[in-house]
Amino acid sequence: MGINARLERSIVNRQADYSTNGKTGGKLAVLLPGLGAVGTTFIAGAIAARRGLGAPIGSLTQLGRMPVSADAPDAMPPRIKDVVGLAELDDLVFGGWDIFEDNCYEAACNAGVLTRDFLAPLQEELEAIRPMKAVFDPAFVRNITGPNVKKYKTKMDAAEALVADIERFMAQNGCARAVGVWCGSTEVFVDVEPVHASLKAFEAGLRGNDDAISPTMIYAYAHIKAGVPFINSAPNRALNTPALVEMAEQYGVPFAGHDLKTGQTLMKTILAPGIASRQLGVSGWYSTNILGNRDGLVLDDPGSFKTKEESKLSVLDSIFRPDQNPQLYGDMHHKVRIDYYPPRGDAKEGWDNIDIFGWMGYPMQIKVNFLCRDSILAAPLVLDLALLADLAQRKGQSGNQTWLSYYFKSPQADPGEGVVHALMAQERMLFTQLRILADADVSVDHPWDPAILPNTDSRELRSDR
Amino acid sequence: MGINARLERSIVNRQADYSTNGKTGGKLAVLLPGLGAVGTTFIAGAIAARRGLGAPIGSLTQLGRMPVSADAPDAMPPRIKDVVGLAELDDLVFGGWDIFEDNCYEAACNAGVLTRDFLAPLQEELEAIRPMKAVFDPAFVRNITGPNVKKYKTKMDAAEALVADIERFMAQNGCARAVGVWCGSTEVFVDVEPVHASLKAFEAGLRGNDDAISPTMIYAYAHIKAGVPFINSAPNRALNTPALVEMAEQYGVPFAGHDLKTGQTLMKTILAPGIASRQLGVSGWYSTNILGNRDGLVLDDPGSFKTKEESKLSVLDSIFRPDQNPQLYGDMHHKVRIDYYPPRGDAKEGWDNIDIFGWMGYPMQIKVNFLCRDSILAAPLVLDLALLADLAQRKGQSGNQTWLSYYFKSPQADPGEGVVHALMAQERMLFTQLRILADADVSVDHPWDPAILPNTDSRELRSDR
Amino acid sequence: MGINARLERSIVNRQADYSTNGKTGGKLAVLLPGLGAVGTTFIAGAIAARRGLGAPIGSLTQLGRMPVSADAPDAMPPRIKDVVGLAELDDLVFGGWDIFEDNCYEAACNAGVLTRDFLAPLQEELEAIRPMKAVFDPAFVRNITGPNVKKYKTKMDAAEALVADIERFMAQNGCARAVGVWCGSTEVFVDVEPVHASLKAFEAGLRGNDDAISPTMIYAYAHIKAGVPFINSAPNRALNTPALVEMAEQYGVPFAGHDLKTGQTLMKTILAPGIASRQLGVSGWYSTNILGNRDGLVLDDPGSFKTKEESKLSVLDSIFRPDQNPQLYGDMHHKVRIDYYPPRGDAKEGWDNIDIFGWMGYPMQIKVNFLCRDSILAAPLVLDLALLADLAQRKGQSGNQTWLSYYFKSPQADPGEGVVHALMAQERMLFTQLRILADADVSVDHPWDPAILPNTDSRELRSDR
Amino acid sequence: MGINARLERSIVNRQADYSTNGKTGGKLAVLLPGLGAVGTTFIAGAIAARRGLGAPIGSLTQLGRMPVSADAPDAMPPRIKDVVGLAELDDLVFGGWDIFEDNCYEAACNAGVLTRDFLAPLQEELEAIRPMKAVFDPAFVRNITGPNVKKYKTKMDAAEALVADIERFMAQNGCARAVGVWCGSTEVFVDVEPVHASLKAFEAGLRGNDDAISPTMIYAYAHIKAGVPFINSAPNRALNTPALVEMAEQYGVPFAGHDLKTGQTLMKTILAPGIASRQLGVSGWYSTNILGNRDGLVLDDPGSFKTKEESKLSVLDSIFRPDQNPQLYGDMHHKVRIDYYPPRGDAKEGWDNIDIFGWMGYPMQIKVNFLCRDSILAAPLVLDLALLADLAQRKGQSGNQTWLSYYFKSPQADPGEGVVHALMAQERMLFTQLRILADADVSVDHPWDPAILPNTDSRELRSDR
Ligand SMILES: NC(=O)c1ccc[n+]([C@@H]2O[C@H](COP(=O)([O-])OP(=O)(O)OC[C@H]3O[C@@H](n4cnc5c(N)ncnc54)[C@H](O)[C@@H]3O)[C@@H](O)[C@H]2O)c1
Ligand SMILES: NC(=O)c1ccc[n+]([C@@H]2O[C@H](COP(=O)([O-])OP(=O)(O)OC[C@H]3O[C@@H](n4cnc5c(N)ncnc54)[C@H](O)[C@@H]3O)[C@@H](O)[C@H]2O)c1
Ligand SMILES: NC(=O)c1ccc[n+]([C@@H]2O[C@H](COP(=O)([O-])OP(=O)(O)OC[C@H]3O[C@@H](n4cnc5c(N)ncnc54)[C@H](O)[C@@H]3O)[C@@H](O)[C@H]2O)c1
Ligand SMILES: NC(=O)c1ccc[n+]([C@@H]2O[C@H](COP(=O)([O-])OP(=O)(O)OC[C@H]3O[C@@H](n4cnc5c(N)ncnc54)[C@H](O)[C@@H]3O)[C@@H](O)[C@H]2O)c1
Ligand code: NA
Ligand code: NA
Repeated sequence: MGINARLERSIVNRQADYSTNGKTGGKLAVLLPGLGAVGTTFIAGAIAARRGLGAPIGSLTQLGRMPVSADAPDAMPPRIKDVVGLAELDDLVFGGWDIFEDNCYEAACNAGVLTRDFLAPLQEELEAIRPMKAVFDPAFVRNITGPNVKKYKTKMDAAEALVADIERFMAQNGCARAVGVWCGSTEVFVDVEPVHASLKAFEAGLRGNDDAISPTMIYAYAHIKAGVPFINSAPNRALNTPALVEMAEQYGVPFAGHDLKTGQTLMKTILAPGIASRQLGVSGWYSTNILGNRDGLVLDDPGSFKTKEESKLSVLDSIFRPDQNPQLYGDMHHKVRIDYYPPRGDAKEGWDNIDIFGWMGYPMQIKVNFLCRDSILAAPLVLDLALLADLAQRKGQSGNQTWLSYYFKSPQADPGEGVVHALMAQERMLFTQLRILADADVSVDHPWDPAILPNTDSRELRSDR
Repeated sequence: MGINARLERSIVNRQADYSTNGKTGGKLAVLLPGLGAVGTTFIAGAIAARRGLGAPIGSLTQLGRMPVSADAPDAMPPRIKDVVGLAELDDLVFGGWDIFEDNCYEAACNAGVLTRDFLAPLQEELEAIRPMKAVFDPAFVRNITGPNVKKYKTKMDAAEALVADIERFMAQNGCARAVGVWCGSTEVFVDVEPVHASLKAFEAGLRGNDDAISPTMIYAYAHIKAGVPFINSAPNRALNTPALVEMAEQYGVPFAGHDLKTGQTLMKTILAPGIASRQLGVSGWYSTNILGNRDGLVLDDPGSFKTKEESKLSVLDSIFRPDQNPQLYGDMHHKVRIDYYPPRGDAKEGWDNIDIFGWMGYPMQIKVNFLCRDSILAAPLVLDLALLADLAQRKGQSGNQTWLSYYFKSPQADPGEGVVHALMAQERMLFTQLRILADADVSVDHPWDPAILPNTDSRELRSDR
Repeated sequence: MGINARLERSIVNRQADYSTNGKTGGKLAVLLPGLGAVGTTFIAGAIAARRGLGAPIGSLTQLGRMPVSADAPDAMPPRIKDVVGLAELDDLVFGGWDIFEDNCYEAACNAGVLTRDFLAPLQEELEAIRPMKAVFDPAFVRNITGPNVKKYKTKMDAAEALVADIERFMAQNGCARAVGVWCGSTEVFVDVEPVHASLKAFEAGLRGNDDAISPTMIYAYAHIKAGVPFINSAPNRALNTPALVEMAEQYGVPFAGHDLKTGQTLMKTILAPGIASRQLGVSGWYSTNILGNRDGLVLDDPGSFKTKEESKLSVLDSIFRPDQNPQLYGDMHHKVRIDYYPPRGDAKEGWDNIDIFGWMGYPMQIKVNFLCRDSILAAPLVLDLALLADLAQRKGQSGNQTWLSYYFKSPQADPGEGVVHALMAQERMLFTQLRILADADVSVDHPWDPAILPNTDSRELRSDR
Repeated sequence: MGINARLERSIVNRQADYSTNGKTGGKLAVLLPGLGAVGTTFIAGAIAARRGLGAPIGSLTQLGRMPVSADAPDAMPPRIKDVVGLAELDDLVFGGWDIFEDNCYEAACNAGVLTRDFLAPLQEELEAIRPMKAVFDPAFVRNITGPNVKKYKTKMDAAEALVADIERFMAQNGCARAVGVWCGSTEVFVDVEPVHASLKAFEAGLRGNDDAISPTMIYAYAHIKAGVPFINSAPNRALNTPALVEMAEQYGVPFAGHDLKTGQTLMKTILAPGIASRQLGVSGWYSTNILGNRDGLVLDDPGSFKTKEESKLSVLDSIFRPDQNPQLYGDMHHKVRIDYYPPRGDAKEGWDNIDIFGWMGYPMQIKVNFLCRDSILAAPLVLDLALLADLAQRKGQSGNQTWLSYYFKSPQADPGEGVVHALMAQERMLFTQLRILADADVSVDHPWDPAILPNTDSRELRSDR
């Protein structure tokens, strides 16, 4: 039986399955700590998409097709969302927390990502989405401050208040399931300390107001406690602590992070594997970014910048492996700059200069200028992650979801394992897991597996034997 | 038994094997029709490399490592050439044909790719390499002309003279085996005509001096007749005719083509799959190239340009599949310009402007400026292709080698099959075949096959089941 | 008496003067043959500016200041329009001709330069501006065709119909004066022929329907006949024929042309003089343009492209003077590309690669990427030219106005004289003439004339004597 | 009498003059504190040029032509050095000081600017140029240290030792005259303090080893004391102190500074005046530089960077005058980055992103990527400045030479006067002064003075009166 046939069967299976257990039938709460540029662009766009007022471009779950094999070369491969059971846009209910009181319409207007024209028909629906009071701590985010914050005695109290928020939101909105996606600001860099070493130490720390416990960690803790998958769109330390990994596994809750892979880093993880594949050397990679949104303002604080920089710098080494290829990458200078530059607003721009060398050491240069839009690139990833985290949860997965590495600048690896940064390798990981979750057999008929070459001609590829 | 173990066994096997049948023991003739910029950069560099005067950067066969699995996470993966049996640089003997009488040193100096400084210690060895008389036809290359050409009555006579050249060269240099790599100029665009439909028609055409038979085809015919694998570095029509495919299969000779994938097209097939993977739309892709070498002069002739343009334009559609994704790529404007611009010499430059769109249709731009060196990028591919074609030949492969698609702008597909353009997908095809030729078992232990993620951390990757 | 004092006197003089002769008091008709992207962007913006809904950025007559001397270092230099008597925005009445029947609001919407949001409050006023029937000839513009055209037997009839249009428009709108600014399409390249040699020959040609007489020439003829200054925003041949120069001088009417200097050519004439000043050599200058508006579509016709290319290519030689500096510019390769690329609309983009060389011949590169907006750059120039042509007319100037070279890609020189392309030199010409027209004495007190360094500190500059 | 005639007479005059006073007849010592990249590139190139082994491209004194008027439109304008009396390359004798003992050949090899090939024929002559012991103070340059330094008790002793060095060098080499050009490292930023307020305070400070007196100041003091003009190629504070200005005027010695205008700042002062002239607004100007030479290493120290940054930031405001044009430049964000990036060596690269806005506020972008060579751009300026400072001295000029602003990033203004940054305005200042020094009458015949439009057609330009 070919893969197409298997996939078709899996579609049938899935439908049976889901109609039986009803898992995708109900409403799914999508809860965002942080209703800023990314959060509101995601929500407004998702609402527009379900009303046919805009297309969810950039979302693999909405537009992507499942790579299939060679059995029926001319068949149109099915959309991912027709193969694996995903919540429908119509079933999503949006909510969140923010330190500002602005409702989602006001916040979207302030963010200045989507035009007023675009937002006009969505105004009423967006105004109805009002932020719950945030758990906030100025020690972790220094350049902004706002009034819509919870008062609490201990960090444990704060966590419990969040659990109550989640439960109340689900009850009020008739939601069967929920997912949380951190879309709040970048926090200052936090080292791993004893308080993060075990769930026990962590809970003691919550009760004792330990300085090393950040708001992101409190939100993560609360979601896991409420049995809700948690995704981290920011580079903030949270789920990459032994304490919270332990907790997620214990509570059977899936999670993934950190830091959405959008502009320059996305380009790096597309380009660098190609350069490495061709055995071209790299003597330097200079990256500069200019951005002028609130995220840029927060990153103007050195503490927050350090968190982001760490996240951005790690990428190249894991792709180029200078340890294995010292002749090519042993003397590579990698520099990353982020400059707050208000004229740009959300329309971030990256400029990369890559000094490469080839045959006999002759130097060449690649320059990449990416005029992107930060939140436009991030929003579809939030949608995908919410739906895929929910899928994982429904399929009984728990703990760290490495197959979601595709979405992150600093994908979380499991202990003792390596991180995969190369985009096309991450794509393979993603599709392999999707096929598992879709009940399709992962084994393949052909030596070079056309089934997992989604953007190439899917007709049978021959090998001489 | 893990893959590392299997690979180790295969190394042993191979050595036994080859010491037994002596196949890699002898000299390998590398014969180039066309000793211009690419040809001499390849030869001079290969000689420098074997004398330790330069590094063969850019060559997968010399520097690349075999992707291995998770059995020994910290083991250094072996070099490809230690796993599959490849001819050593020391065993190569270089020769070729050209319409100019310049020896290889003079030709390299004229090409102006490698500096005089670099060439100085190689002068004597390069001077000894003198071009055999070429089979040339000004109807196919209009902007240049030269004195070192064969006189012949019929094109069949020309082919036979080439067969004699090959045999004489091998005998005089004590070569056990040979490979041919076309490094001659880009010829004018040729349509497939009845004369190309079968070997019989083609041989009649050779005898009858059919106008639709180009020099490249004559060289290809001669090599196959001599039992020598033939690679086409140019976009010229030759092996992509039914006649020559039939012949290669009948004679049991492997071949591959067309048009080395070096500058802008290389970048396209690295970048475009990433854009497609992320479901970002493309409204336009504008590519312009400036180059000032002799190849540029030849391409200034509209006939030759058409051949090159066809080769460059096909790439994007096969990656983006507008048929499957009309919303994203149905209205994409793709334009390719090549301008002869003498100030640049061989230091070609490409500028790409890519108009993409994301979430809710918002437009963004990517600009790539590649200051490359044409022949520096091409030379290591010539080396790889020579060695891999020889490997295929020794391993009993014949006909079109689709697994070498990795190296070409217009990879030749087998009848009824699709072309794979995405670089990382081509890399998978290449490694899969290398593992087959290395006698390593292609099945893998882990769902997402770390064995074929060569540029990522090879330590075990976990999947939740 | 210092320059400031003199300027102040001239302001007084001017006001007296104009109140006496009433010249600036009345309405000024601004008549545009061609109500496309440039024409409607100009009109809509001028209307918005006078209603305080937008700023006329880019217009020297509205925002520029008169450079003044050192008498009062800290005084704010006066605005140009306060020194030389210019018609006020409030006094302008807009009209024109086009081959399409769209009113100005529809045409502006179609052009897609200004947003609907911006145009909304102007809708009614713009709708009232309806094109008169055009004099059109498909032999001169091949890629477009439209219904709103005059029927005529001879080209002289056509010209007379235009004169009647002008007079009717002025009468109906109570206009004391008028100016015409060609904003129609680029026509095919026309050689100078005997019919253009004298007014007599030209008028015979009009009566005899001579093929070498284009619509632009007919409009120019009609305006001059009506005593109305005529400006040519396009590269079309018209006023640069002996016949029309003779006519303008005879009728006492000022004119200027050709081809507004906006994007890439503007940058060239800013950059090149700096490179030349520093005695840096240039081995090549490669310019490519992508644009997707209707003008781009017209330029996709080789005939129209040739007209534009001629206009663009002449610039560098006159700045670099390879005849005087053969060592630096004798071997310069200058190439200009314009590619029609629909994704861009009016948001044209230029990419320039400049290969320069310095001390001991070492090569360097400058790359300029200009993401401009064609009509946004052109509109303020139309406004300036209309007002300055009217000024010249009122001040009794006639014939070719070389001091307006500042505004053109191909400024028209007088017979036997050279063309000035360098922007800052053109600026000097403009300001010198403005000072003459303002009745300020042109002589200066200081060796390096701070009065004509408008963008530098105007305080006294010292010279050692 | 036209200007050409006048210039010819001045050539005669000059020759008479100089043959009489013999001033240009003798040898001119060119003394450089700092024999690094710039210093050795200048010396090696000047020697190559006088031996016909290289062209002094980029040097106005060697290649530039004197702008002439309209009397003889087709005459070739004379070279500057044929009009004003300049020392010949043959008459220059090179010397200097450095903290390293390397002779000029070794230092040039280390700098890596000129190739070994280029330096080979100059080796002997360059080896003979050995640095005198430097006056050095690690408090002012933190990232480097060297052995070839003077020991001294007070800074006055150090200054006197330098005076003795200068006199000894001139005597030993038979030099009639000398000039000094600081080519040493960038020092840390120094505020103006009481010790810099008068010559008296300064000399007391030298005797008392005042901390605020830097090596550059000591060299400047010593040169002036020796009656030798002093030029400052670096941004280091020295001549821009009341004390040293007072001294130079008292001793009758000309000087000029600071900081050679080469890469990005050169481009800014070419581009910005054009943007300002066109009344285009600027919302942001982001400049980043990557460079990897020793100068870059020194600038990696925050103290030295501050000195450079101050020098680079001042430029735009003086050109755009936000005080006069708040609507256009009142909210401009200007950011300058310099990053030490070793892969580049001396081949510095600048990337500028300029956010502009035009008609009705619509935004556009200009991006400039300058792949320059730092010392290649600087060397010809050192030559020009040495020759022109000597000219000024011979012509009896003293004190600050503002007409040399053309060469500097931070031109020194006289007290109470403004700084001119716009390159073409600086060019006018330079030529005006050259005409004064050439005894040609500065008055001009024509309203817009073709005589001072050196890069345009010099034929008569007409004005309608
Ligand atoms: N392409 C992208 O936009 C992108 C990519 C990767 C990561 N990210 C990360 O996503 C996050 C959001 O980015 P953004 O552009 O929306 O930023 P933003 O500043 O517009 O929004 C963040 C919001 O979080 C709120 N917030 C901060 N701390 C909070 C807390 N403790 N509880 C609740 N709300 C809190 C802020 O008030 C703000 O409204 C940032 O951490 C950013 O680094 C964004
Ligand atoms: N990056 C690259 O350089 C690159 C990439 C892809 C393809 N190619 C192709 O490789 C080929 C060689 O490129 P190049 O830069 O070396 O060009 P080149 O012009 O420097 O060399 C081609 C040589 O072939 C010779 N020649 C032409 N016709 C011949 C014939 N019939 N028989 C024998 N010799 C003949 C010419 O005399 C010349 O010396 C071209 O077709 C080019 O399009 C090059
Ligand atoms: N930056 C710039 O936009 C720029 C710069 C320099 C020159 N120009 C020139 O300005 C002109 C207008 O540019 P555009 O972008 O507005 O083009 P457009 O195509 O948008 O508008 C031209 C209009 O002229 C009309 N037209 C053509 N022939 C006519 C005729 N004989 N009589 C009356 N109307 C006629 C067309 O129907 C069209 O509406 C072009 O020639 C262009 O080359 C534009
Ligand atoms: N385009 C340019 O290269 C450029 C442009 C503007 C300004 N500059 C300035 O020119 C100067 C020289 O630049 P470079 O690239 O040659 O730098 P460099 O580091 O190569 O050379 C400077 C030399 O000065 C020496 N030095 C330092 N302090 C000294 C002292 N007190 N006495 C004597 N020697 C001393 C150093 O040992 C070194 O050899 C720097 O200040 C730089 O900022 C250079
Ligand atoms: Na892979
Ligand atoms: Na000026």
